[in-house]
Amino acid sequence: MNVVVLSGGVGGARFVQGVVAAADLVTVVGNVGDDVDVLGLHVSPDLDSILYALAGLNDEERGWGRAGETWRVLESVAALNGETWFRLGDLDLGLHLVRTQGLRAGEPLSLVTRRIAEALGVGTTLVPATDDRLRTWIETVAGEFHFQEWFVSRGHRDDVDGLRFEGADTAAPAPGVLDALEQAGLILIAPSNPYVSIAPILAVGAIRDALAGRTAPCVAVSPLIAGRAVKGPADRMLARLAGGTSPRHVARCYEGLIDALVVDESDDGDLVGLGDVRPIVARTLMVDADARRRLAEAALGAVPA
Amino acid sequence: MNVVVLSGGVGGARFVQGVVAAADLVTVVGNVGDDVDVLGLHVSPDLDSILYALAGLNDEERGWGRAGETWRVLESVAALNGETWFRLGDLDLGLHLVRTQGLRAGEPLSLVTRRIAEALGVGTTLVPATDDRLRTWIETVAGEFHFQEWFVSRGHRDDVDGLRFEGADTAAPAPGVLDALEQAGLILIAPSNPYVSIAPILAVGAIRDALAGRTAPCVAVSPLIAGRAVKGPADRMLARLAGGTSPRHVARCYEGLIDALVVDESDDGDLVGLGDVRPIVARTLMVDADARRRLAEAALGAVPA
Repeated sequence: MNVVVLSGGVGGARFVQGVVAAADLVTVVGNVGDDVDVLGLHVSPDLDSILYALAGLNDEERGWGRAGETWRVLESVAALNGETWFRLGDLDLGLHLVRTQGLRAGEPLSLVTRRIAEALGVGTTLVPATDDRLRTWIETVAGEFHFQEWFVSRGHRDDVDGLRFEGADTAAPAPGVLDALEQAGLILIAPSNPYVSIAPILAVGAIRDALAGRTAPCVAVSPLIAGRAVKGPADRMLARLAGGTSPRHVARCYEGLIDALVVDESDDGDLVGLGDVRPIVARTLMVDADARRRLAEAALGAVPA
Repeated sequence: MNVVVLSGGVGGARFVQGVVAAADLVTVVGNVGDDVDVLGLHVSPDLDSILYALAGLNDEERGWGRAGETWRVLESVAALNGETWFRLGDLDLGLHLVRTQGLRAGEPLSLVTRRIAEALGVGTTLVPATDDRLRTWIETVAGEFHFQEWFVSRGHRDDVDGLRFEGADTAAPAPGVLDALEQAGLILIAPSNPYVSIAPILAVGAIRDALAGRTAPCVAVSPLIAGRAVKGPADRMLARLAGGTSPRHVARCYEGLIDALVVDESDDGDLVGLGDVRPIVARTLMVDADARRRLAEAALGAVPA
């Protein structure tokens, strides 16, 4: 069975590891709304988190970036009063240099991503949602910020009033995305932040339309455990933008797009208001490879045999 | 007294260290003909050799690049099948990233260079010969190569039949170059390769004209010792392109542009054919800071008091 996963960064990448361990033909559609230009380089944090996780190169302890990373280039940049707000490690920079060189030579992001995945020995297909420029902007009381400025520089401290996906109106799905969705036996939405990780993917009109008109079931995994985000601002955003952090508030982010929602055992007591969305209760904290695989199996098991 | 030094890379940088130790107001005009785009970054090897030497960051033993350098980024690039023929260290890359970002933002090379020099605490004025694109091409029996391809990738093994300085026809001197030459009390030409390090500077018409019409004396330092280059292909190039490796062959590279030539003691026996060019015999091997300073003093002493 073909499985398509829509995924954001670190949490999504962990889930993708589980799916790849539990299923054969997996295509991951990655968020590019948080892509950012740093030191003149095109950085795609979510695609890279997925690549590093699938290649086994990710730093499990730190939770982001590469294992055994060093920071020599940024030391040098700092001494030259250069841009250091976004922490790019040396190994990571190698990838950004190769990617940026490919993009400047006219290669689309999807092709560069494929080349890099191949070089890293990643067999799973990873496709950016779009090859076009799509950037997430965060509207807050303190003003509108590019996603990474809000997330990294401001430590996502400002309450979010809204989001804007610059370029989404005209963005086309990257080659392979629509075919994958059409041929999918199951579509999964990773336990990523619905607003900043998944919404930018769904902001590409043709992807949203394909999901709304799906023939395969679509199962989302809630990123909340007992109404709290494991990491990051998802719970605060849901509380403010959706009015709460119950499963129904998560489901509402994907209204008309999902058939089931995997929720954590701890949220078992509040399964009202889900309408047509079938709840699947599982342990969702991905503490290790086994936990990742079990969560993936719970989501994969949602398909009627 | 204002001293202007025309300089190439590593050997020139060592000489510049000596001049800065021996004189007060020094302006260095650096070669940019061997600038090269690597991994999408603008690399200016000669400017950087001078900056690193003056900042005390250069690797004395290896002879190029930075002391304490590491190579993590290139390891990562290699794993991605990226471009690794030009050895860029991690600390070095920090500078190339900052420079390239400045250039892409529209800053001229001279301004970026000044910013970097300031950040490194380099008080000496370093100006690229030109802010315009100027690239050295090497004509050989095996074909024409960009300088770095010939020098690095092919290990300068191909005999050189000629040189071409792409962009020189329209290149203007960088801001400050002509003023410095006009106000100079002495102009020095570093013991760099006359063909690949100094000629690209002189290929900028206005710089050559300023040198030809100079009021200050101009003293060149021969890069040869006993008719041999300390390092690199200068001797082979002189033998083939000038017909020999005696002081007069070096002097001929600067015909009409110099008043004196500092030659090594070992070349003392072959001082014929120098015409108006006064020979100054000195020990030219720059084994340490003292030797660099003494060589600079020999060149500085060429000025009639």
